[in-house]
Amino acid sequence: MTGTDLLQRLASGDRRALARAITLVESGRADHRAEAEALLDALPPKPDTLRIGLSGTPGVGKSTFIETFGLMLTGLGHKVAVLAVDPSSSRSGGSILGDKTRMERLARDPNAYIRPSPAQTQLGGVARRTREAMVLCEAAGFDIVLVETVGVGQSETEVAWMTDLFLLLLAPAGGDELQGVKRGIMEIADLVLVNKADGDLAAQATRTCADYAGALRLLRRRPQDPDGFPKAMTVSALESTGVAEAWEQIRTLSGWRREAGILEGRRAEQARHWFEEEVRRALLSRLDREPAKGLMRQLAERVGAGDLSPAGAASDLLDALLGNRPG
Amino acid sequence: MTGTDLLQRLASGDRRALARAITLVESGRADHRAEAEALLDALPPKPDTLRIGLSGTPGVGKSTFIETFGLMLTGLGHKVAVLAVDPSSSRSGGSILGDKTRMERLARDPNAYIRPSPAQTQLGGVARRTREAMVLCEAAGFDIVLVETVGVGQSETEVAWMTDLFLLLLAPAGGDELQGVKRGIMEIADLVLVNKADGDLAAQATRTCADYAGALRLLRRRPQDPDGFPKAMTVSALESTGVAEAWEQIRTLSGWRREAGILEGRRAEQARHWFEEEVRRALLSRLDREPAKGLMRQLAERVGAGDLSPAGAASDLLDALLGNRPG
Repeated sequence: MTGTDLLQRLASGDRRALARAITLVESGRADHRAEAEALLDALPPKPDTLRIGLSGTPGVGKSTFIETFGLMLTGLGHKVAVLAVDPSSSRSGGSILGDKTRMERLARDPNAYIRPSPAQTQLGGVARRTREAMVLCEAAGFDIVLVETVGVGQSETEVAWMTDLFLLLLAPAGGDELQGVKRGIMEIADLVLVNKADGDLAAQATRTCADYAGALRLLRRRPQDPDGFPKAMTVSALESTGVAEAWEQIRTLSGWRREAGILEGRRAEQARHWFEEEVRRALLSRLDREPAKGLMRQLAERVGAGDLSPAGAASDLLDALLGNRPG
Repeated sequence: MTGTDLLQRLASGDRRALARAITLVESGRADHRAEAEALLDALPPKPDTLRIGLSGTPGVGKSTFIETFGLMLTGLGHKVAVLAVDPSSSRSGGSILGDKTRMERLARDPNAYIRPSPAQTQLGGVARRTREAMVLCEAAGFDIVLVETVGVGQSETEVAWMTDLFLLLLAPAGGDELQGVKRGIMEIADLVLVNKADGDLAAQATRTCADYAGALRLLRRRPQDPDGFPKAMTVSALESTGVAEAWEQIRTLSGWRREAGILEGRRAEQARHWFEEEVRRALLSRLDREPAKGLMRQLAERVGAGDLSPAGAASDLLDALLGNRPG
């Protein structure tokens, strides 16, 4: 299939073309990469889609939530793509979403598309390829993209850099054994959803929600957002309660940001960010090849031991690699 | 003065030699830079010093706190250096600490050394040079270094990457108008100090402290730290109350980390981090020169407008600069 064929079939919503295009962006082969870039450059912008980031550690009921939420959205007439950024999925093809049976009903829904996290092959590679897969899904007619992360390393930040708003899913926690929310994550959440607000855990979920609402008030809010955001709410993905209300809040916030031009401006900023990241990544990938790599490892050891200063060692490395002092 | 002279005079605690050495590390001249790196490489490690990061927005009483705290430490026999990372101090020579009259008594103390923030000349430059100035102060016999930041941009993170522990200074805040703590900062604080716990503000300071203590409990604590950290306390820099108690907590935490080998390991990790930063900085500085710079700006605009994909634009840039695909 030629590039133009692929583009046309993608635009017509052909799922096989979408799968083929995502395989291209995930490939490590240079010819695939060139084909992928030509395809991405040819895609028209899709400003009316909604990109939602979602984080939550294992055990909070993320799959159940995504299934309930996703089915509600397709029921409302949306086409929903679910992607993942999981830097821990090294070779297996993705530890999260690897098994579509995790969200069996959503996986069978013709208006939903679920794609596991690409495998980690190099630093920053997972998020980059997920971002590109997201753009391909939008080109194929999916108007809502959910990007899930388990929160390993910098993955939330990277997901925040590719989405319009960010949800944090938590489980109820009791008294002093409050769950350890990862450093930095509270700062990027637009909506904190305390899941499992059902049965025996309902009261505890309400208390946990109040605790987080209090903590959110201590953080500086985004000056352009409407009052009350970031917000904490309880949901039960199992009993489908609170999920419609969460969607209402998402619509309020995204609608506000869209009307104010914030969403568009943010996407443009994100695109520039990824461009700069791509440039950095390509340049720095030179450090990851011999002879730079071996030399860098040796020098880092001497620096760690206090034997050389960081700046002196850096000069030594660049002198050896480039033959001059690039300042 | 030759490099060896300077090294010897520095080691003997000569303040003029220290000032001269710091001027060298802050200089943009290539010959000064080479001299600075030779000097830094020749300095012996000082594992017994304590490096304390301190952040707080203007108005929380940071100068008063540093003066009270610094004088207490010199009174206990310590030699205290106060440095700053303020990326906003572009040309003036530092908006914070620029005027030593801000801490008049400490500035006159023979066992204290105050140095304003170096001016910002390039991205990441301020923190790098402050870190080097810190090492020089230690070489000159200062056993406690306080690195202050006003919290512009990434400055707290950078200060956390050069210190053994981190203090966040806050002012009492009332009810709903709780102060907007910058995103990310709560995450790196080891000790939150609510200042101005005196006079009319005493009760409010206690309530603010309780709020932050609650918020800190929601964050994941560093597994290697003793119970109760990160911790929130009230202090009054004006009335010198709580300051000795804060020092006691700092000693407990740093002593614990030192005995467990965490402090040493963290410094080695930090040195490796700065080495990698130096290498990146030097490599990326090539992007900041023509022809890369102009081309990058043009491409970023097209990417922001949705005209080119981030990856495609990055390939174009590197092809133009390097003539091949370094992917």
